[in-house]
Amino acid sequence: MIPAVAKRDDQASSLSYQSAGVDIERADALVSRIAQHAGSTHTPGVLGGVGGFASLFSLRAAGLETLEDPILVSGTDGVGTKLKVATVLGRHDGIGQDLVAMCVNDIATTGARPLFFLDYLATGKIEAATAERVVAGIAAACRAVGAALVGGETAEMPGMYASGDYDLAGFAVGIVGRKALVDGRQIRAGDVVVGYESHGVHSNGLSLARRVVDRCPVPDEAWSAPVADYSGAPSTVADELLRPTCLYAGLASALAGDDLALGMAHITGGGLPGNLGRCLPSGQMIRVRLGAWPTPAIFSWLSEHGPVDEAEMYRTFNMGVGFAVVTRPEQSDAAIALGAAHGLRAWCIGEVVSRGPSDDDAVRLEA
Amino acid sequence: MIPAVAKRDDQASSLSYQSAGVDIERADALVSRIAQHAGSTHTPGVLGGVGGFASLFSLRAAGLETLEDPILVSGTDGVGTKLKVATVLGRHDGIGQDLVAMCVNDIATTGARPLFFLDYLATGKIEAATAERVVAGIAAACRAVGAALVGGETAEMPGMYASGDYDLAGFAVGIVGRKALVDGRQIRAGDVVVGYESHGVHSNGLSLARRVVDRCPVPDEAWSAPVADYSGAPSTVADELLRPTCLYAGLASALAGDDLALGMAHITGGGLPGNLGRCLPSGQMIRVRLGAWPTPAIFSWLSEHGPVDEAEMYRTFNMGVGFAVVTRPEQSDAAIALGAAHGLRAWCIGEVVSRGPSDDDAVRLEA
Repeated sequence: MIPAVAKRDDQASSLSYQSAGVDIERADALVSRIAQHAGSTHTPGVLGGVGGFASLFSLRAAGLETLEDPILVSGTDGVGTKLKVATVLGRHDGIGQDLVAMCVNDIATTGARPLFFLDYLATGKIEAATAERVVAGIAAACRAVGAALVGGETAEMPGMYASGDYDLAGFAVGIVGRKALVDGRQIRAGDVVVGYESHGVHSNGLSLARRVVDRCPVPDEAWSAPVADYSGAPSTVADELLRPTCLYAGLASALAGDDLALGMAHITGGGLPGNLGRCLPSGQMIRVRLGAWPTPAIFSWLSEHGPVDEAEMYRTFNMGVGFAVVTRPEQSDAAIALGAAHGLRAWCIGEVVSRGPSDDDAVRLEA
Repeated sequence: MIPAVAKRDDQASSLSYQSAGVDIERADALVSRIAQHAGSTHTPGVLGGVGGFASLFSLRAAGLETLEDPILVSGTDGVGTKLKVATVLGRHDGIGQDLVAMCVNDIATTGARPLFFLDYLATGKIEAATAERVVAGIAAACRAVGAALVGGETAEMPGMYASGDYDLAGFAVGIVGRKALVDGRQIRAGDVVVGYESHGVHSNGLSLARRVVDRCPVPDEAWSAPVADYSGAPSTVADELLRPTCLYAGLASALAGDDLALGMAHITGGGLPGNLGRCLPSGQMIRVRLGAWPTPAIFSWLSEHGPVDEAEMYRTFNMGVGFAVVTRPEQSDAAIALGAAHGLRAWCIGEVVSRGPSDDDAVRLEA
């Protein structure tokens, strides 16, 4: 029922179990602390005290048994090489939110309400303090989106990971009634695309960003170079590269609930060109108006110091828009207002047009 | 909807996207082949063609909308350092089944029917042939248990994994009506434990097994040392260490359906002592009769060549029993027969007794 250190046998550093005793005590203490974090996320649907091998979630207890034509929506993701940046800088507090956001934002594009989340954390040798920070971040993000952290796996795999390295995968499950499913099918030419602010690079393009930093004359100084954050406040390159991915599930749920969402897109690897089209029916495309929103300074810094050309920037990074909704033109103001109500700036960033036979791409960036 | 190579941006080996073109073509080809494997697993519940960011599963389309008091059962797991053995030996065909079994056997202990599965595969640089073998194995195992492979993530993380290494996590969701939930609450003293054969070490204790091989005078020869398989047929150490974990979901479902299961246990890390107790109510314990079943020869080989003492062996490995059910004494013959119907030998391996205040452990091994 709780994130468990289940690969305990793999901790053996000799051929007897006893000699691994210290590690087991350490692992048990970690499991206990992880259980507290997980418990803080539990919602009425979570069934405790049964199911020693698996996690149980009751649709009746969650008030969802009578949902008509229920559809389970699931997704898995990791946070990529943002982990390497976190490890290099020794800062692990935001990674948990990144993991939850990468998974939950994806399922939220369908209008689904997140139900529960599980994580997989793998490392060569568990560093309890780091693992607890990561899980605490996961739990806080789960609470923020109303998802219960119902299970997980903490695996020690000697020889697989370098000292201090770890990998992380997340799994999210949500639910939506068929009638409320946001599937893009009603999108037509003339609809408007409203983009919601990102807080920076989020969890994509970090390999490229790291290479930019490494190419600076003094990489250690580059990490602490001054750069404004998404709101214009003073910050540093390190802070901006590690700032957690925004959680858009509450916004997405509100957009779907207010019947404002014809289609929604989570802007991740591939940027606007690679992701906006994923919510469209065939026969439609989106024209994005560059300059319709302010691009956070970290992107200019990366572009200048790479250098990385503009097309490459847009195909790699979200460039300031982390989530988008396609809405009717007369509803775009309401969609923007809903963003504000969720603490997110929003702008009309483009529109839907018919896709002709010569239009190779579903998304066109226009100056 | 399909396992995607979503970390595409992280493949950039220079500061331009174009220079990564070859990798992207390679990744696209892999995604296409993965999609075919995933498609082969799809069940009526899978909704295709919608939800570009997430995987959709309709309870109505799966014939489950009217299930009374539905409980979603989920679990996540990896295959631990069995991956290292597979990589060292260059044999990846069985790892997919290991991954599915580790997750699905866990959720099957509740009587849940598996609905869908997602995988996370992370590596430093994708080797398409290896990745496809792994996913083909996952898909085959999903078909065998009736779970749809609805999604996944293939992440390239330069600098995180050594050349040829990869990590793997799985995530399974099933469903069970509350009345059919197998939760151990009806277990009482006098009930019988029926154990079902394992096919060897399955996916636990591989770090220890590798150390045993490495301590042999000529490790390369140790891999090919002769040892009988679980059925007594001639085999080798390498074959036995890589033999895939049994899929017990069909058996578990049949046991639950025939009302034979009071509690069920998947025997993984920690062996019988560490896992049998997880299906018990407090106040009960299990006495296991050592010698009640034949132990596959690979365990004797490991014990002799380590050397590893017997207690350590039982706390690390399944020792020949991969799954167990607690049943009423008069039903044990039926439980054994059901095993045979699923191609699995089974034996009465112990019984439930009241747990006294001086009984430290929920499981006691008796000679």
